[in-house]
Amino acid sequence: MQLLFPLVTSDVALFTLIDQRLRVLLVQRAEEPAMGKWALPGGILRPDVDENLEETAKRALSSKACVSVRQLEQVATFSGASRDPRGWSISTLYYALLPSDQVPALAGIRTEAVRWEDPENHKQPLAFDHAQLLDNALRQLRDKVAGGALPLQLMPNKFTLTDLQRACEAIAGHPYDKGAFRRQIKDHPALLAIDGEFLRGAQRPAQVYRTAMDFRF
Amino acid sequence: MQLLFPLVTSDVALFTLIDQRLRVLLVQRAEEPAMGKWALPGGILRPDVDENLEETAKRALSSKACVSVRQLEQVATFSGASRDPRGWSISTLYYALLPSDQVPALAGIRTEAVRWEDPENHKQPLAFDHAQLLDNALRQLRDKVAGGALPLQLMPNKFTLTDLQRACEAIAGHPYDKGAFRRQIKDHPALLAIDGEFLRGAQRPAQVYRTAMDFRF
Repeated sequence: MQLLFPLVTSDVALFTLIDQRLRVLLVQRAEEPAMGKWALPGGILRPDVDENLEETAKRALSSKACVSVRQLEQVATFSGASRDPRGWSISTLYYALLPSDQVPALAGIRTEAVRWEDPENHKQPLAFDHAQLLDNALRQLRDKVAGGALPLQLMPNKFTLTDLQRACEAIAGHPYDKGAFRRQIKDHPALLAIDGEFLRGAQRPAQVYRTAMDFRF
Repeated sequence: MQLLFPLVTSDVALFTLIDQRLRVLLVQRAEEPAMGKWALPGGILRPDVDENLEETAKRALSSKACVSVRQLEQVATFSGASRDPRGWSISTLYYALLPSDQVPALAGIRTEAVRWEDPENHKQPLAFDHAQLLDNALRQLRDKVAGGALPLQLMPNKFTLTDLQRACEAIAGHPYDKGAFRRQIKDHPALLAIDGEFLRGAQRPAQVYRTAMDFRF
């Protein structure tokens, strides 16, 4: 079947941290084409409902994975006649970061059809060109963190600077120097120390932080 | 009129250098909506003709401005119900660089409907959301050059390192330190010295260069 109009979709690479490792959400397709295969969550544009393609992406995350995120970042648009058997298609790809403390709530809902996988070493071959899409999203996230952006939207409600360093390391794929990292994030306006709250463990007490409400990654 | 399917287009910010200043191509719209207004060159996707949205952009450049470029770089996709009076619309935006020695040939063709303007200070108010599109394209070009990429595709067939520095400065909007610039570009694999060819002027002779054929910005 050749569509006269292109099929317009949004797809999302939703990243989180599980046990301090970077993970991406994959969903199993319940319909043809590529039924049973794993893919990034996505959906078809509904011009009567969606204000823009970012809203299409949010609606897809909400309906396919029961997730709502504050911020999506556009990666790129993929297009062509051969990427989807239904015909000429367009996908605008976004990525988003899910706080690590929101993962357990999600896991109980649709455990059969949803998986968190290593974005570089996922067990499932992905439907369509989604492996390429995922590579692009991961590269953009890495570039952003390499450029000094802090992935605060991965962090739980309360966290220490060591937790934040581990998050950056999980994205970058290599360890950070602690001293250089502390200097880099010093006085970051979105990083708020919680007065009098410290994590006490084997080391000396660590200040506990939260993220400013209006922070955008 | 509300379209059941979205209107899918590609638009291009085509940059060049004129008298060592950065310029962007604007075309005057010959049809409604926004007839008579100035806009980035662009066109509507033809799924029967275009392999992907980049081809839509190339076709638009070719038909509206008689320009063919080797490389387009995707900037972002803009979408929504309110950006075009025809209904829900999508534009995938690209930018491209035109060698400065190809501008005169172009100028003779359709002088009425095509203008090269200062991208930050264009005299014409732009149609649709094209002012926003142009801002995004300019920012992406600047970020790339600030990150160390060389805008070799702006250069004429033969050029000196001073010409190249002027091109970078025109994009960045501020002067470069000559010594630091020479160190940065030293041994760049796409920068080829033409044996025995020098430009002789008031200063000491300057080596003449060309760009490697397979260079991608």
